[in-house]
Amino acid sequence: MALIVHKYGGTSMGSVERIKNVARRVAKWHAAGHQMVVVPSAMSGETNRLIALAKDIQEQPDPRELDMIASTGEQVSVGLLAMALQAIGVPAVSYAGWQVPVRTDEAYTKARIESIDDTRVRADLAAGKVVVITGFQGVDGHGNITTLGRGGSDTSAVAVAAALKAAECLIYTDVDGVYTTDPRIVPEARRLERVTFEEMLEMASLGSKVLQIRSVEFAGKYRVKTRVLSSLTPPDIDLATEAESGTLITFEEDEQMEKAVISGIAFNRDEAKITVSNVPDRPGIAYSILGPVAEANIDVDMIIQNAGVGGNTDFSFTVHRNEYQKALSVLESQVRDSIKAGSIGGDPKIAKVSVVGIGMRSHVGIASLMFRTLSEEGINIQMISTSEIKISVVIEDKYMELAVRALHKAFGLEQAA
Amino acid sequence: MALIVHKYGGTSMGSVERIKNVARRVAKWHAAGHQMVVVPSAMSGETNRLIALAKDIQEQPDPRELDMIASTGEQVSVGLLAMALQAIGVPAVSYAGWQVPVRTDEAYTKARIESIDDTRVRADLAAGKVVVITGFQGVDGHGNITTLGRGGSDTSAVAVAAALKAAECLIYTDVDGVYTTDPRIVPEARRLERVTFEEMLEMASLGSKVLQIRSVEFAGKYRVKTRVLSSLTPPDIDLATEAESGTLITFEEDEQMEKAVISGIAFNRDEAKITVSNVPDRPGIAYSILGPVAEANIDVDMIIQNAGVGGNTDFSFTVHRNEYQKALSVLESQVRDSIKAGSIGGDPKIAKVSVVGIGMRSHVGIASLMFRTLSEEGINIQMISTSEIKISVVIEDKYMELAVRALHKAFGLEQAA
Repeated sequence: MALIVHKYGGTSMGSVERIKNVARRVAKWHAAGHQMVVVPSAMSGETNRLIALAKDIQEQPDPRELDMIASTGEQVSVGLLAMALQAIGVPAVSYAGWQVPVRTDEAYTKARIESIDDTRVRADLAAGKVVVITGFQGVDGHGNITTLGRGGSDTSAVAVAAALKAAECLIYTDVDGVYTTDPRIVPEARRLERVTFEEMLEMASLGSKVLQIRSVEFAGKYRVKTRVLSSLTPPDIDLATEAESGTLITFEEDEQMEKAVISGIAFNRDEAKITVSNVPDRPGIAYSILGPVAEANIDVDMIIQNAGVGGNTDFSFTVHRNEYQKALSVLESQVRDSIKAGSIGGDPKIAKVSVVGIGMRSHVGIASLMFRTLSEEGINIQMISTSEIKISVVIEDKYMELAVRALHKAFGLEQAA
Repeated sequence: MALIVHKYGGTSMGSVERIKNVARRVAKWHAAGHQMVVVPSAMSGETNRLIALAKDIQEQPDPRELDMIASTGEQVSVGLLAMALQAIGVPAVSYAGWQVPVRTDEAYTKARIESIDDTRVRADLAAGKVVVITGFQGVDGHGNITTLGRGGSDTSAVAVAAALKAAECLIYTDVDGVYTTDPRIVPEARRLERVTFEEMLEMASLGSKVLQIRSVEFAGKYRVKTRVLSSLTPPDIDLATEAESGTLITFEEDEQMEKAVISGIAFNRDEAKITVSNVPDRPGIAYSILGPVAEANIDVDMIIQNAGVGGNTDFSFTVHRNEYQKALSVLESQVRDSIKAGSIGGDPKIAKVSVVGIGMRSHVGIASLMFRTLSEEGINIQMISTSEIKISVVIEDKYMELAVRALHKAFGLEQAA
């Protein structure tokens, strides 16, 4: 008997039949004596349909009105799921974010949760009801509807679990857990039974799409025991089996004692590299280059500056590939002359590959094994950046799959720890 | 410069292009210096889509959850309309019923409005904004979403107009006003420039679909000047012309001095007739028959009891045609034996035709002209019922069009009063 939060994505809610399956799965947990809170996403395709409609009306939709519209997808979902539960004899009640309320700041389309009132939900749970709460949305201090941005339902679920001090937050998705790397690239990729919060954070930020990064931050901040597991198993499989499936995000490092040094290989092809060569090596140069880029609202990821010997230096950074041209023209028009740069160039055809692992902290030689592996495959490294638990390299994008496979093998990830 | 409420139906909101036209029309009124509140319905088809989805999940949808779902159609509409206004430079803001709030009782799917807080709306109007409020819905005292039932957006608009003491509530529809009868049946049918609240109430209750009957009751109770007019005129037609178009629902009888005795001919084919013959003519017999019918949740419209001479009587009433079989079986199983009725029979193929007019109060001979006209056409009258401003007859349904045309001519309705 525990308080459990389930989260189901848009695919799981994608049709009447699938919603009925979600209800059967939740009913199983409820029948086992758990207090159940469920956070479903909008039916798949619905949020996109609503946003497209808004854009047909107003090219740059007003953020407040966009949230008014986009939030309805989840409202329909909670009503349907509560009905599906009732239809199989499980008492259930649905709430929109504002009814709980899930209080957020006023940043429409990318609001952050500030607090969740648990009074109403607790009363329903005590009365034996399953409580179904909209994901993705909340209400600001003035009673305006806000949304949390793409993937926000993950964050809603974890935040609800935190507010209710739930025993566990189960995120049901169309993958059956977190893998050492993408199985589509490395067939030997292995599901991790556990992953630490820090590793999950790095993997999410490095492009692994399993969980929205803010939900991971939330899980870390409030130490919410969160599990990623498959929504594709039959809804009536044995509960104990289901409860141990997927990947658990943990916070206790000692649980990781038996773990491999490296947990996984992350990668993405979303970035482009820009290099400003031959700039004077003097204080303030980084700001002179990146200031105008930031003012143009372009996010920068990796930044590398390498001082040469002659008083000049090369300065490189990566941006999202969609913003490559924009970033180049900002540099040409606002930066080049003012800093007397030699040349401005770049490459949109790069990939970033990272090894991630909390064990790296106490092990030397990870970087050298990584670099040696890439070298043996003849892959040139263009940029390197490191953190406590991650080493990332930028390489030519055509080598990405090769690099991921080689590293996965080199670090022995196909074998269970 | 006045405070004006506009209401637009689902057809007017049916596509992106149409929503843009609504915005242009509202912008025209706003530009003329009026304070504008707009109440749009859900996009046409949307509410039906949502209800069908709910019924696929739960055969008898839970009323609270159904309202949760059904209310989203209007929430999308207000967001889109506010955006469409902003897109043409008109400051606008949308509110869902709970945000105003529009407070209702707790009767899900058929809630009644209890109060409307005008604070937030007035502040926006004072700031020059157009305020767009969801029709069809409100919030009960516990923060649950409620809906007002089919056609509820008319009621929302009139209620908002009453709460704001609006100068006028304009209901834009796909007809250009209230007619003496349905022009599809009588081509000579004439649009009424004015109609009294009482006449409108009778016409609405008799099946004229122009306005939802509860909106008319609301208009009467709070004396809201309400106009029914066309949404199909070009949005940029001259404002003064538009403001005088359609049909105005009035409350001053003296304005009706020059009016014809009869305002219109209403009709419907929705009913079925049931007759219980040869029942004892004793106190309590009506209750013995109609009590079980009411308990089975079957609404009864006309009721006629005609005492015979031999101590026995025939008792007839009408129900909605969809409930004809159900009503018959209730009578057979629960009533026949207990009251020792002779026979129970009925006819689902009937029509009700009514002449309506506030002038009838002070004029004799209306009934006789009606009955003579039907007689001359060889139409047999099966039931008659009368009120202060209405005479209704039940006839065989194949004669309905003939009766309507003959009565329209007999009362001279094709000529302007």
